[in-house]
Amino acid sequence: MHDFPKRVLMREEGAREGFQSESRIIPTEEKVRLIDALSGTGVRLMQVASFVHPKWVPQMADAEEVVARITMVPGVRYFGAYLNEQGLERALATRRLRQYGVLTQYCSETYAKKNVNRSNQEIVATFPHLCQRYRELGLDIYGIIIAAFGSNYDGEVPLSAVLATVDQFVRTAAEQKIRYERIVLADSFGWANPGQIIRVVGAVRERYPDLYVGLHLHDTRGTGMANLYAALSVGVGYFDTAIGGMGGSPFAKGAAGNIPTEDAAFLCEELGIDTGLDLDRLIECVQMAEAIVGHPLPGKLARGGSLTAFRRR
Amino acid sequence: MHDFPKRVLMREEGAREGFQSESRIIPTEEKVRLIDALSGTGVRLMQVASFVHPKWVPQMADAEEVVARITMVPGVRYFGAYLNEQGLERALATRRLRQYGVLTQYCSETYAKKNVNRSNQEIVATFPHLCQRYRELGLDIYGIIIAAFGSNYDGEVPLSAVLATVDQFVRTAAEQKIRYERIVLADSFGWANPGQIIRVVGAVRERYPDLYVGLHLHDTRGTGMANLYAALSVGVGYFDTAIGGMGGSPFAKGAAGNIPTEDAAFLCEELGIDTGLDLDRLIECVQMAEAIVGHPLPGKLARGGSLTAFRRR
Repeated sequence: MHDFPKRVLMREEGAREGFQSESRIIPTEEKVRLIDALSGTGVRLMQVASFVHPKWVPQMADAEEVVARITMVPGVRYFGAYLNEQGLERALATRRLRQYGVLTQYCSETYAKKNVNRSNQEIVATFPHLCQRYRELGLDIYGIIIAAFGSNYDGEVPLSAVLATVDQFVRTAAEQKIRYERIVLADSFGWANPGQIIRVVGAVRERYPDLYVGLHLHDTRGTGMANLYAALSVGVGYFDTAIGGMGGSPFAKGAAGNIPTEDAAFLCEELGIDTGLDLDRLIECVQMAEAIVGHPLPGKLARGGSLTAFRRR
Repeated sequence: MHDFPKRVLMREEGAREGFQSESRIIPTEEKVRLIDALSGTGVRLMQVASFVHPKWVPQMADAEEVVARITMVPGVRYFGAYLNEQGLERALATRRLRQYGVLTQYCSETYAKKNVNRSNQEIVATFPHLCQRYRELGLDIYGIIIAAFGSNYDGEVPLSAVLATVDQFVRTAAEQKIRYERIVLADSFGWANPGQIIRVVGAVRERYPDLYVGLHLHDTRGTGMANLYAALSVGVGYFDTAIGGMGGSPFAKGAAGNIPTEDAAFLCEELGIDTGLDLDRLIECVQMAEAIVGHPLPGKLARGGSLTAFRRR
């Protein structure tokens, strides 16, 4: 009945999406301390900073310094987020990151306008140029579909609209002779429910069996972990997660972080799915992250405790 | 592939399991205010107090007064928790509650000892007497299996042990000529994972297709909502929930409440499963509950917002 993956790859977002949502500026050494601790958890993919203009995101003004100071562990791929080519150039200029070439589409025109001041059509028109640049730089490429499950701006997203963005990605790949490492469907506004996850992932899979599909899930309305489970049950093996569920203040209206890395890893491991992550070390990172941001984080496992100690008795 | 129920019945535990875990004594009028607000959400079953000795649970010393002062709404069944016959007599003496006759078994001997100072065998030995009393009083009866999915005291619970407790319930029913309204499997320690939920519920169903099985889920390790979804997918239609996820302080080690009523209802409604609950009224109750207890509650929907307003646009 179920089609669980044998292993799951989680991309750690705490240091980027997490810190970015904190209103108090976190000292650079604290960011470095958390990233270094995360490097020891078994994580293999970590976004460590965002190369955006400090005027827009003052929290990320120290992106270069963070990258310069972290201790890089072999086997972990470190990279930064960016919204435009200047950002990518800054990330590459650190000479420490193994950047991705990212192609982004939006299932909400209003959110696209708000985020990058472009329509989805204008965004797609930049793909040939971006692909050429990514090819020159020899970057791995992935595609991300923002608001694939609905948005607070434009409401529900019909399945046909998601499929049309995937079609566009596939056309771009053929025209530009690129290959995607993965296509990530982002539930940016926490609208997804498990039934929808199964329907949308299933439809994409049926149309493009060879695409590697991942999910970026936010736990805005409490469905995050159920969505993770539903996705696992249909074989999805890649998720963006954030330590402790960082990324949304527990007090801010409407904000919620990615699903918590430690809770997601616990769920996978209990289902017999290998994550390569050490739950007790993840819990230590949650405690460190809570001390750094100065408020409790929504993840549960750090308070409930892993079952390792109980089972050892 | 899925066997979702058409509708789901949720039993509201906030006023009992929720308030009980608060260290500050909540004024009676505040408890009454929340219960009265909950009565307007469409809830059909609500546990409003616990009739235990005030020496052990000072928070519940005003149980009778709470019951006397709430405004009872037709269509809502109000009842109280109790651990022994004195407690049941107190609940009945209020003359306002429609009590259940409860038969409890434990899948953790240590926890049974700790909770009621008896072995499971000693507990079962009281069933004939209890059933006679329940029959005399004309009470609806349900059975609850505590720690059915594992415990911090005695670790994993093999499927055979859960089935043995269900067997015992079924034998008792035959001997005592009683009928269970339902058998509730309680994940008292938050050990359950969705695969286990499906296995255990499936095995009970296979052996006793006519038993009505419900679940009491705690979100101790972040699996609560995934467990809810897994249970729904195999047709479970009854859950204990608590408004806002009350029942565990966000700061207390190891404690976590029932799954949040509003998040559970949102998940069901998004899957097309009728709960009879009004999400926006539930959100108002969460906000009231947070104001009353004086700290944020773990439920997400109250911060993320329901999708009703967005869809209406």
